[in-house]
Amino acid sequence: METEILRFLKENCDTFVSGEEISHRLHVSRTAVWKHIQNLKENGYEILAQPHLGYRLLKSPDRMLPDEIGYGLKTDLIGKKIISYASTTSTNDIGCSLAEQCAAEGTVIISEEQTRGKGRQGRSWVSPKGAGIYFSVILRPGLSPAEAGKITLMASVAVSRAIRNSLGLNACIKWPNDVYIGSEKVCGILTEMNAEQDAVNFIVLGIGINVNTSRQALPQGATSLKLQLHKSVDRIQLLQELLREIERQYELITRKNFPQLMDAWRNYSLTLGHRIKIKWRNAEIEGQAMDIDENGALMVRDDFGFMHHILSGDVRVVR
Amino acid sequence: METEILRFLKENCDTFVSGEEISHRLHVSRTAVWKHIQNLKENGYEILAQPHLGYRLLKSPDRMLPDEIGYGLKTDLIGKKIISYASTTSTNDIGCSLAEQCAAEGTVIISEEQTRGKGRQGRSWVSPKGAGIYFSVILRPGLSPAEAGKITLMASVAVSRAIRNSLGLNACIKWPNDVYIGSEKVCGILTEMNAEQDAVNFIVLGIGINVNTSRQALPQGATSLKLQLHKSVDRIQLLQELLREIERQYELITRKNFPQLMDAWRNYSLTLGHRIKIKWRNAEIEGQAMDIDENGALMVRDDFGFMHHILSGDVRVVR
Repeated sequence: METEILRFLKENCDTFVSGEEISHRLHVSRTAVWKHIQNLKENGYEILAQPHLGYRLLKSPDRMLPDEIGYGLKTDLIGKKIISYASTTSTNDIGCSLAEQCAAEGTVIISEEQTRGKGRQGRSWVSPKGAGIYFSVILRPGLSPAEAGKITLMASVAVSRAIRNSLGLNACIKWPNDVYIGSEKVCGILTEMNAEQDAVNFIVLGIGINVNTSRQALPQGATSLKLQLHKSVDRIQLLQELLREIERQYELITRKNFPQLMDAWRNYSLTLGHRIKIKWRNAEIEGQAMDIDENGALMVRDDFGFMHHILSGDVRVVR
Repeated sequence: METEILRFLKENCDTFVSGEEISHRLHVSRTAVWKHIQNLKENGYEILAQPHLGYRLLKSPDRMLPDEIGYGLKTDLIGKKIISYASTTSTNDIGCSLAEQCAAEGTVIISEEQTRGKGRQGRSWVSPKGAGIYFSVILRPGLSPAEAGKITLMASVAVSRAIRNSLGLNACIKWPNDVYIGSEKVCGILTEMNAEQDAVNFIVLGIGINVNTSRQALPQGATSLKLQLHKSVDRIQLLQELLREIERQYELITRKNFPQLMDAWRNYSLTLGHRIKIKWRNAEIEGQAMDIDENGALMVRDDFGFMHHILSGDVRVVR
């Protein structure tokens, strides 16, 4: 009901709406309306209450609340259900555990901060409170484990497009799972899967973006969107754009239109065409980054002419 | 302490040991000894207590208790920690959740019954109380998701060898994950993994064996070891042998000696050399089962001469 009342206030935020009207429209008592308004205020909504005029929404809080993210989102799958936390260990951990309990595909888990934010291979992801967008999406694509790289690739394209389209920044992809602006990292992606031998049961796609993070709060080599733009960024708007992009790009995977996604990826890639060194498990390979294959693996031609298909690793451009 | 007392009683099961001796050897009070003995009795141990003589272990309960499984097991990794349940939903589910909480490699989870025993692709595994061996092992091999099939293959070899060596039955492997005696299934294997793109975080290897299961309690097409032998089988002894075999075969994987494992698998295979139909996702392929590859995938040559490498599917031999 709070969601309904908030929606009504948002739709009429240029005017006052009377308690009676809300009560009438939403079929609740005026006392209930008053109580819900108090709750919204406690959650950080600035709502003006005037005798004889009614209520008017002045300002929403700068918090990643489901009602804020869902309002005007207009997606069919991604973010149909949103679960938010003020603080959690890692949204990917929550996502994995919810997915095991059969949470629906497209469920988004988001937190204002992560106390144990995760990167690839057990690395950490710095997730200071209120500064970034830290979320996970539960996906259930009909893929084999070998194809799971498609999801990371899809997500890196979606993040780059959302940043480019919303903010005009030149976001690029460093294979396999980072989005850069210039020479600094602004976003990391961690896909975790639960699978049988040949079938992925679910994938939890985790995305962390440094949005309004200050220089001091960032690790070396990282930047934030605010640092790049010299002004704060509306996290809700950016996240909405990103969820829409994920929905679009994910459809390319589920509708077997992966080549189109590969083309977008190639356009944004920082890695292709360069001579690189790649650390991958206990091996290091040096060669030319030629392309990606249909599983999202990087194709590297070494100096003996052999082509390697590498699913994940640490890349360094060499000169 | 109960484990220590039980061990002492087992080592001296052909005679009486006095409470005083136990108390002295294990540095506990005689009252504590008495209490632990009562606990053991409540857990189904038959212990004779004679004034002036002491205690003597007559019989252990027919239950899969950690102390029973661990006694004389002599493995270095598999079963170093054993967690047992009288009943649980699925030992694989428990295993996954413990592995996420960083449970050690080799941890065994076992249950007298499973109320939601799982097979491949969301199928169920009938797990009636006290009749079978239902357990899961947490493994952390340094494999990529594409190599996870090696674990299923390893387990099917270990189960076949344990049944052959302990009971003299001609256990064979139906690719990818079943062990048969004659034309009936006696064991199913379900490997589930949690992985990043290129790295398996952990694998939970689930094994269900119909040991003393009656004909009425079995689904069609299934058999039990008791039905084959016309007598009950000691579940503890069989499980111990199996855990030792898993340790041996698993070493072949971690020490990069997979070809030796493949040879054993070929020897036990019901599938190789036959003309088969294989259902795999939405496709069906008919052809000759030629071999397995280095990832545990079945190599099938279709009638156009193309070789398919198939990681998982439903196989039927055709004539």
